[in-house]
Amino acid sequence: MARLSLRSADIRPSPVRDMLNVSQRPGMISFAGGLPAPETFAGLDLPPPPRDLLQYGPTEGEPALRERIATDLAALGLDTDADRILLLSGSQQGIDLTAKLTVDAGTPLAVESPAYLAALQVFRFYGATFQVIDRADPAAGWAETPPALAYVIPTFQNPTGQCWSHAERQAMAEACQAHDVILFEDDPYRDLVYEPSERTPACAWMKGGSWIYQGSFSKTVAPGLRLGYLTASPDLFPYLVQLKQAADLHTNRLSQWMVLQYLNDPGREERMEQVAALYRRKRDVFADALTRHLGNMASWLLPPGGLFFWLTLADGVDVEALLKKAVARGVLFTPGSHFLAEGGASPTIRLNFSLAEPEAAERGLAILAELLRVEA
Amino acid sequence: MARLSLRSADIRPSPVRDMLNVSQRPGMISFAGGLPAPETFAGLDLPPPPRDLLQYGPTEGEPALRERIATDLAALGLDTDADRILLLSGSQQGIDLTAKLTVDAGTPLAVESPAYLAALQVFRFYGATFQVIDRADPAAGWAETPPALAYVIPTFQNPTGQCWSHAERQAMAEACQAHDVILFEDDPYRDLVYEPSERTPACAWMKGGSWIYQGSFSKTVAPGLRLGYLTASPDLFPYLVQLKQAADLHTNRLSQWMVLQYLNDPGREERMEQVAALYRRKRDVFADALTRHLGNMASWLLPPGGLFFWLTLADGVDVEALLKKAVARGVLFTPGSHFLAEGGASPTIRLNFSLAEPEAAERGLAILAELLRVEA
Repeated sequence: MARLSLRSADIRPSPVRDMLNVSQRPGMISFAGGLPAPETFAGLDLPPPPRDLLQYGPTEGEPALRERIATDLAALGLDTDADRILLLSGSQQGIDLTAKLTVDAGTPLAVESPAYLAALQVFRFYGATFQVIDRADPAAGWAETPPALAYVIPTFQNPTGQCWSHAERQAMAEACQAHDVILFEDDPYRDLVYEPSERTPACAWMKGGSWIYQGSFSKTVAPGLRLGYLTASPDLFPYLVQLKQAADLHTNRLSQWMVLQYLNDPGREERMEQVAALYRRKRDVFADALTRHLGNMASWLLPPGGLFFWLTLADGVDVEALLKKAVARGVLFTPGSHFLAEGGASPTIRLNFSLAEPEAAERGLAILAELLRVEA
Repeated sequence: MARLSLRSADIRPSPVRDMLNVSQRPGMISFAGGLPAPETFAGLDLPPPPRDLLQYGPTEGEPALRERIATDLAALGLDTDADRILLLSGSQQGIDLTAKLTVDAGTPLAVESPAYLAALQVFRFYGATFQVIDRADPAAGWAETPPALAYVIPTFQNPTGQCWSHAERQAMAEACQAHDVILFEDDPYRDLVYEPSERTPACAWMKGGSWIYQGSFSKTVAPGLRLGYLTASPDLFPYLVQLKQAADLHTNRLSQWMVLQYLNDPGREERMEQVAALYRRKRDVFADALTRHLGNMASWLLPPGGLFFWLTLADGVDVEALLKKAVARGVLFTPGSHFLAEGGASPTIRLNFSLAEPEAAERGLAILAELLRVEA
C-alpha cells in the first residue's frame, strides 16, 4: 500500500464528479451543474494569435491583460493596479492557492452556509474547520477564535443567487480589518445581472487590511478557456504569485490573448447586455414553470442574477431519496446539503436554470413535482 | 498581520523567478532557464476549433487525446490505457498534485541530487525531507525509513542531461515495489534525443506497485499552451483526478484540441526529427565554444539529449559571486546549488544551450571564462 498524506485520507468520491458523469447520459435533464448556456459564448473568429505566445510566459500573466483587468477592477472601487493582478487557470485555482496559503489542519475559516461546494471541499481537504458567518453580526465569536479568512460570494451567491446589502458588505470588511481576518471574495457571477442589485465588492470597503478578490471569465467569455484572475492586498499578493508558479508556472497564454481580444472588443458591452437578457428570459420562464409545478410544495426567492434557484422544500423531505428517484426518471439536481458548511441533511435543493432548454426544464420540473407529491 | 499556514512561512523569493526577471532585461544572454528554441514550436495555422470546446469539459481531459496519449505510452511499455490518462495544465501541475497526495510535514522522499529545482521547491513547501538516491543501491536505508515516493528523471535528467542505464531503471523499479514506495517518474525531455540512449521509462519495469509517470508537450509542441499529462497505477489514479478537479476543474480544452491536431499530423515524426537535429547542432556548437573558452577550467559530459550542460568548476569557486559578476556583464546561468536536495554550496553550474543564438552563446561563454580566470 502506497503511503499517502494525512489530508488524502479525506479524499472521497466527489458528489460533483458523480453528478457530472450522470449528467452526460443521453437525454438527462440536468439542473445540477453551473454550466453557462453555450449560445452565450464569445465567438472563435479571431485573427491568428502572435507566435511569441507559444513560449513560456510570466507567472503573473500577460501585461496587457493585467492592465485591462486592473482598470476594470479599479472602476469597481478596488484598491489595485496592474502589478497586483494574477491570471489564474480558472478561479477554482484561486481557491486552491488561497487555501494553500492559509489553511493548516484545524485552521478555522469563516464561511457562508450554504456556500459554494467546491470551495468547502478544498478548504476541508487542507484541514479547515468552519465557522458560519452571521451577516447581521459578522465578527460574532471572532474575538475568541479569529478565523484565518472569511470566504464570501456577496453578489449572486452560489447557491442562493442572492446579494448582500451595502451595509452587510461594509460590516464584513470592517470586521475583517478589526480582527486581522483575510477577506476572500469570490465574484464569478457579477456580470450576470437581471435586476438592479448591490454589486460593489465587499473588498472595495477594505481600507488596508488583508484581502483577496477573484473573478472569472467562465461565465462571460467561455469556461473551456479556463481563465480567471485575482487581485490581493500587497501583503498577500507576492505569496500568491509564488504559489501559482509552483502550481503550474503560468496560465495558458492563448486563452489570455483571446480574452483580451474580447475585453477590447467595442461590441463587448452590448454582447454582455444580450447575454444578461438571454439569462433573464431563461430565469423568468423557469420561474413560471416552477410556480406552476412546485408552487405549493417549495419556496424560493427570485434570483436577481447568477445561474441558480435555491428551493426550500417541506421539512422532512428526504432529498437524497428524491435525487435517486429523479435520476431514475432522467432528472438531475444538486441537494442543498452539499453546500452546508456544517454538513447534515437539509430540505433544500439547487436548480440551475441556464443550461436546460425551456421544454426540457418544463418536463424536468413536472417530474420533480410528481416525485414530491408521492413523497409527501 | 494575516494568519498564514505553517507551510507558507517557508515561501521565499524564488531563485527561478528572480532569474526570469533578470533574463528579461534587454540584451541579457541567458543560459539560465529551460526555454525551448522558438523555431521548434509547432505552427498555429490550424482550422477553427469546434465551438463545443468552449463549454466546461471532463476533469480527466478530452477523450480522443487521452486515447492518443495512452497508445503512445503503451508503446513505451507502460501498463496503462485511456482511462488512466489525466491531462495537466503543464507537467509542473503533476508535481504539485503528487506532492499534495503524498507529503505531510516531515514525510521523507527519495530524490536525485542534483534534481529539478522546482520539484524540490514544491516538495519542500509541503514539508518533505529528502533522502538522496544512490542509483547503485536504490533501496539503501529504505528498510529503516521508507520514503513515500522516489522522484526521478531517468532520461536526459534536469540538470545533468544524462540517462540512467537499463539496469539502474530496473533496480529502481524493483526497489520501489519491494518497499511500497511510489515511483514518480518525470519525463519531459524524452523526445529531445541526440544520441542513441536508454529511454525505456523506469515505470515500465513496475509489475504492480504504485507509480506515477508524467510527460509534457512544452518541449515538443509549445510551452505557452501549458499542456502535460500523467498516468498512474490504478490505486493512485482516482486520487489524482480528484485533486486535479479541486485544483482547476480541468485543463484548457483549446490547448488539448491543438495538441491532438499536432499528434495526429502525419508530418509529426519528421518534424520531431528536425527539432532534434536543430538541438543537436546547437548542442555541438555550444560544446565547441565551451571547449575553447572553459576547456581548462571546467569539466562536463556531453548531454545525449535534453536542454542542458552541467559543469563542474574548480573546487572553491564561489558560484554565487560569479553569478553576480556575470549578471553585471549581461550573462545569466543557474548555480548548481539550487538543484541540490541537501542544500549547501557547490562548484557547479547549469547552462541551457537551446535558447541563445550561437554568437550570443559565444560571447556569453567568453565572459564566463574571463570572470573565472580572474576568480582563479
